[in-house]
Parts: sequence; structure tokens; C-alpha cells
Amino acid sequence: MTDPMRLPKPYVVRTALDEILADLDVDDPVPSERELAARFGVARETVRQALHDLLVRGRIERRGRGTVVARPKLTQPLSLKSYTEGAVKMGRVPGRILVTWQDIPATGDLAAGLNIGVGDPVIHLERILLADRQRIGLESTYLRADRFGFLAASCGGETFDPTTSLYAALRARGVEFGSAVERIETVVPSPREADLLESTTAMPMLLLNRRSLDVDGTPIETVRALYRGDRVAFEANLNDR
Amino acid sequence: MTDPMRLPKPYVVRTALDEILADLDVDDPVPSERELAARFGVARETVRQALHDLLVRGRIERRGRGTVVARPKLTQPLSLKSYTEGAVKMGRVPGRILVTWQDIPATGDLAAGLNIGVGDPVIHLERILLADRQRIGLESTYLRADRFGFLAASCGGETFDPTTSLYAALRARGVEFGSAVERIETVVPSPREADLLESTTAMPMLLLNRRSLDVDGTPIETVRALYRGDRVAFEANLNDR
Repeated sequence: MTDPMRLPKPYVVRTALDEILADLDVDDPVPSERELAARFGVARETVRQALHDLLVRGRIERRGRGTVVARPKLTQPLSLKSYTEGAVKMGRVPGRILVTWQDIPATGDLAAGLNIGVGDPVIHLERILLADRQRIGLESTYLRADRFGFLAASCGGETFDPTTSLYAALRARGVEFGSAVERIETVVPSPREADLLESTTAMPMLLLNRRSLDVDGTPIETVRALYRGDRVAFEANLNDR
Repeated sequence: MTDPMRLPKPYVVRTALDEILADLDVDDPVPSERELAARFGVARETVRQALHDLLVRGRIERRGRGTVVARPKLTQPLSLKSYTEGAVKMGRVPGRILVTWQDIPATGDLAAGLNIGVGDPVIHLERILLADRQRIGLESTYLRADRFGFLAASCGGETFDPTTSLYAALRARGVEFGSAVERIETVVPSPREADLLESTTAMPMLLLNRRSLDVDGTPIETVRALYRGDRVAFEANLNDR
């Protein structure tokens, strides 16, 4: 018989940990597993599970050999605005690291998304997204090479700095974003993706697939972006229209 | 020295599995781990990882002691429409199982979300969301008890059938949804949530927090909905306004 007034230990531990975290600031060290187990009078395994849960939720993060209170998640608005604008709005400094920049032949999916033929040249731009130098996402953008020749890898990239906003560069050349469809899923990363994001293959990620059209309805880009689930949330503002 | 022309085995196995799945229909059995390992000439662990990846992505699912090809994910539009409308649009039969229906005192978060005082009565309705009888989500809705008295648990629920659409019931009583803010994150479920969703604590889920206002800007509800990551995707249609 279980006593109905006795709460399950994992619940008690989570609540106690929430109280401890509420009194700490960002970057403050979190007490060790051993210390917390002793303080709560529970098994270390119970504390380990509660800490793992906080890690996935992005409340705490590993730093060196210890654990510290994490910054709030970067909230990315679902809109036609660029990543840069979303990050700046949150008071974070956006940045990017170039991983891949090459011309590839269109696969069936890319050809359908960009309204071109299979095998036609496509520009693939893969970049790590940064917020205050933290790695938060990995974004692959695909564009028609014939329309966006100034971005073609074969041009040596002299006209576009891949550490800056692609949308700003496109807008500066007269491209007007008209609409987009975004699909959001959750996945675990491949070993390569986990490495690039300085995370693990056990960390759930948000996967965003986007197809953007210009104001005439012509496809501009297809995008596959992977965001660390512990560092990013999406936000949508809905209205009855 | 690795041969640059030799692709890594996990990649080869994933590609070969994708080809096998492309030839199968929904509900068809997937060859066993042992059989696939023999066919590809790789270690069973390599096949196991590839199958786990397909499981998380919702391409395959466990059924009894075997594994079958899964149905496509239910795509839930981000809109003010109800879950019912989203499911019907996908050709799925929506359903709900009532888990919790009780009046509770507002916590700080609920009071702020619903513009009421801490401790004021709130209706908590927790339901499992079904699509063709498959469990796909767990939704907790919180409403002001003073405004939505007909839903109060203390009224015995004679005026609302919790297996039907709450939004339809609210609209039938003149409630007009005006706007909502939705926040999307990825989490792993608690043991209780995993049980209710017939899943595991290792399966990434999509967490959606919503706050809906009526056309006058008065809060209607706050919602915490957890969706199985292998069965649900969200879709947003964005326009430049």
C-alpha cells in the first residue's frame, strides 16, 4: 500500500531542484549530484535523472567538468524575418560559421522545391548559427544557381560574406520575400550534426524545413535547419484571419 | 588511411533502408535486425542504430514483437483552428480520452496567464488526443472557472462531452477566438506522460504552450500540449504582413 499523501521521490527532487535554481543566476554553478543526493536523502540515480531532465530542457548546461545555470532559450519567431533579427530582438549577438559552400546538382526533392529540373545546379550553403558565440543551430540553405549566381561557390564568394545575414544580402539585391511554409519536427541529430553543434546524439533537436517564395510566388530557397532543443524555442503569433 | 571513396557504413545502411522502405506500404512488416545485418554484411549494432533513428523519425513503429512501416506524421497547422479540424483535414478520425477533469486553485503562472488572482478556481481538463485511435498527444487545458462554469468539474460535466472538441463547445456558447501565442519546444516526457502516450521517456516530444485570447483581448485558456515526436509535425504558413 502506498501512502497517498507521500509524493513520489522524483517529483520531490524536481520541485526542490526548481527552488534551488530559482535562487541562482545564469552561469552560477549547480551543486554536484553527490551533494544533492545527500541533501535530499535520495539515491544518486534519482538526482541524475532529474539533472538530465533539466539539461534537455535547457535549464542547466555542462561547462568543463561542472554544471551551471543556463541562459534562457533563444526564442525564434516564426516569421519571414531572418535569424539575425530574431537573435537581436532577444539581445543576443548573432553569428555564423561557414561549414559548406558548394554547387551541387539538384536531387528530386530540391528540384521540386525550387521549380527546376533534376540535375540543375543548386547552391548549398551550410552554416552553424551562433548566439553570443554559443552554437545553437545548423542551417542548410539551397538556392537556384542560375538566379543567385553572385552566391555561386564558383564565383569565389567575393560578393557575399557567409558570416553575415543571407536574407539581408538577398534583399539588398532586390529579392522580396512574399510567403513561406515552415514544417517543424523533433529529431535526434546524426553524429556529424551533433559534433558540429557541440552536443550529443541523445539531445532532441528542433528540425525546421522552410520553403520561401518571393512576392510573385517564385521559389527563393529551401532550408533545412536543425536547432539545439536545449537552446532554442519557436514562437508563433496567430490571428483570426 | 581511410579510402575517400568508401562511404561510412551507417550512411550506406541508412540509404539501403530508405530504399527498402520506399518499396513497402504502411503497415507492411520491416525485415528483422538480424536479417538486415546479414543482407548488408554489417554488425547488428549498426542496423540497430539505423532502425532507432527511423523509429524516432516516425518512419517505422513497433507493433507487438515486430516492426512495421508507420503512417505519415499527422501535420498539425499552427492556427486558431481546433485539433479536430487539423486531424480531419489529414483524413484522420480525431478522438480524445479524458484523463483529468477537476477544479484547481490557480498557481502564479496560471493566474498570470488567465488574468485572475492566485488561488482563484481554474478548470483543468487533461485529455489524450487520438488520430484513428492512435495516441498522438496529451493536452492540458486551463480555463477560468467563473467564466466557463458549464465546464466546471463540480457541474458533473453534463453539458460537455470531453471526448469531443472543446473549441466547438466554446464557440457554440458564443466564445470568439481572436488571437493566440504559441511557444514550441522539444522535451522528453516524464514517465507518467510516456505511459499515457504509450511511448518511452527516450522519445523526443514536441511541447506546445498556447495562450488564447478572445476578440476583446480577454484570456480564454492556457494550454500545455505534448505531442509524440514520431507521430506529429507542425506546419506554419507565413505571409509578409
